Amino acid sequence: MTSSTPVTSAKLAVIPGDGIGPEVTAEALKVLEVASPAGIKFEQTRYDLGAERYLATGEVLPESTLEEIRAHDAILLGAVGGKPNDPNLPPGILERGLLLKLRFELDHYVNLRPSKIFPGVVSPLGEHILKGAEVDFVVVREGTEGPYTGNGGALRVGTPAEVATEVSVNTAYGVERVIRDAFARAERRTRKKLTLVHKTNVLVNAGSVWWRLFEAVAAEHPDVTTDYMHIDAAMIHMTTDPARFDVIVTDNLFGDIITDLAAAITGGIGLAASGNVNPDRTAPSMFEPVHGSAPDIAGQQKADPTAAILSASLLLDHLGHPEAAAAIETAVLADLSARTPGQARRTSEVGDAIAARVAG
Amino acid sequence: MTSSTPVTSAKLAVIPGDGIGPEVTAEALKVLEVASPAGIKFEQTRYDLGAERYLATGEVLPESTLEEIRAHDAILLGAVGGKPNDPNLPPGILERGLLLKLRFELDHYVNLRPSKIFPGVVSPLGEHILKGAEVDFVVVREGTEGPYTGNGGALRVGTPAEVATEVSVNTAYGVERVIRDAFARAERRTRKKLTLVHKTNVLVNAGSVWWRLFEAVAAEHPDVTTDYMHIDAAMIHMTTDPARFDVIVTDNLFGDIITDLAAAITGGIGLAASGNVNPDRTAPSMFEPVHGSAPDIAGQQKADPTAAILSASLLLDHLGHPEAAAAIETAVLADLSARTPGQARRTSEVGDAIAARVAG
Ligand SMILES: CC(C)[C@H](C(=O)O)[C@@H](O)C(=O)O
Ligand SMILES: CC(C)[C@H](C(=O)O)[C@@H](O)C(=O)O
Repeated sequence: MTSSTPVTSAKLAVIPGDGIGPEVTAEALKVLEVASPAGIKFEQTRYDLGAERYLATGEVLPESTLEEIRAHDAILLGAVGGKPNDPNLPPGILERGLLLKLRFELDHYVNLRPSKIFPGVVSPLGEHILKGAEVDFVVVREGTEGPYTGNGGALRVGTPAEVATEVSVNTAYGVERVIRDAFARAERRTRKKLTLVHKTNVLVNAGSVWWRLFEAVAAEHPDVTTDYMHIDAAMIHMTTDPARFDVIVTDNLFGDIITDLAAAITGGIGLAASGNVNPDRTAPSMFEPVHGSAPDIAGQQKADPTAAILSASLLLDHLGHPEAAAAIETAVLADLSARTPGQARRTSEVGDAIAARVAG
Repeated sequence: MTSSTPVTSAKLAVIPGDGIGPEVTAEALKVLEVASPAGIKFEQTRYDLGAERYLATGEVLPESTLEEIRAHDAILLGAVGGKPNDPNLPPGILERGLLLKLRFELDHYVNLRPSKIFPGVVSPLGEHILKGAEVDFVVVREGTEGPYTGNGGALRVGTPAEVATEVSVNTAYGVERVIRDAFARAERRTRKKLTLVHKTNVLVNAGSVWWRLFEAVAAEHPDVTTDYMHIDAAMIHMTTDPARFDVIVTDNLFGDIITDLAAAITGGIGLAASGNVNPDRTAPSMFEPVHGSAPDIAGQQKADPTAAILSASLLLDHLGHPEAAAAIETAVLADLSARTPGQARRTSEVGDAIAARVAG
């Protein structure tokens, strides 16, 4: 939730990460600096975490580093992840040991993912679907529970008798707070519409607590229109009528899936920003592009920094500077409209162009 | 897997179900009859199961009915499900008590869902994505494990201390057999390509057994090209380059989600057929359209029976009659190409038209 008390000085932890992470983060910081209101001071600390660090030192997220990061006001993250199938990088080690560890430890229970079809951006959906309707919704993905808890295990690994489990944990505590946040967000928007996405017909235990709390909180928000959709049906609605969505609230795994679809249909993951938000501010929130570290194009100034820059906009909004945040978004919109299809700019050129628009 | 021994007489259990189920099933049976090779006899038994039956009698799937159904050679199912949010129909009761019960009891471990963009069908994806490339893939969804086992529970329901869990169960036994089936299918296709879809970076226990067995079986099939994709990344590839897929193998829940997306991008769930296949033939396989019972348009002859008719084609293929199956598909293709956009036909008119093409 956006704070009402603007922060005038902020300690910013920067985790550029791997692959294209450092390149896009540099542009995000460039724009952040230009966009920040006069007088606001960002004190930056850089943390080298990710695949490179792990491969070099065996460290993923030392406890002392986590505690240092915790003492910041916000985190800007680029992207983490090594080369696909690197045998020295066990699957999940960075995801569970770093990314998810931060989300869980810092209680980022609102994973916020806005989706818009920006002007000038080509959606994979045809004009017969889009019909000029405005696609502008936000997914409030639960960030600290569900199948992401790392709860589960395996027995007789590597034998024909192996059994492996994954446990989705859903608490009334965790579900209610994210639903409340989603209702509050819906209430602040023009259409005031909130859709719960789940799979209540199969995952009946988890579905039941989500459904009941959704209904209960809905009763307190008569001005918000609600509906419900199974995750599979949501695939269809998202690709055949994306304009129908305003705010979506859903669990951690469904949110992971639907936000990538949302990114795809709004023109690609190169534009998708996200905030891992701790609305209670008991720990710093973290802002990151949805895309990965794209090691294949790393270091070549080929990556589009727009998602990272939009993540910096979410960061400013979170720190109580909605005008500065909006200025970044406006600059990005203008930049996107001015892009010439097929004409590739360097990562830093995109950052410069957007920074110039914010400044001027 | 297609049987090599064609069945010449078959006991067919027909479950028309609720809503539009009976209407589309009638057309599927009409076409099945016309398409069946001379000499093949279908002995049909009709089972009234679904929301109506439950609301009238409290029965979902009596044990004796299950045993009767088990004695058949194949099952044709329309659709089950009552009115949305009917307070007399607890969420999941039909899904878990009837549909999934049949899939699990009859060991339908291969949930087969072919996806094609048929000629004349409008995909929501734009021409800039499709570029005339052929979209023709099949999803092999695991049908008897994963988060669908009904394993889980809830504690302190309705209190602020509620905890609800869902356990995804993955066994080497269950994972290996579906992966083997998928490799065999890939091997029979022109492109011979198999993509594993999972979320190995987060669901590390389940992901590990899927990944290891996929690699192990791949080693036995050097002629099959393999790749791997996280479920979230699959959302992007499916909407920006669906032609890249040939065969996809995935778990029960990811399969549920991705097949609805596949149905959407190939022109809608009105065309999506599926087979719940027991490749070992220890029990009858079940064929059903992917769509639901659509109570809002039930009894009005408005439903498109094409998905049900294509499910009958899968049934014939499963019973060892690939030519008869292909004849139905050819007739459907011709019918689709001849459809006039905006001109609605009655359910029975579509069935008649396709039956006439098969016959003549
Ligand atoms: C990298 C991975 C752990 C992560 C997730 O699954 O949440 C990513 O896909 C995302 O959406 O931020
Ligand atoms: C109705 C429901 C239980 C079912 C599923 O989730 O498998 C349906 O969505 C399907 O895909 O066949």
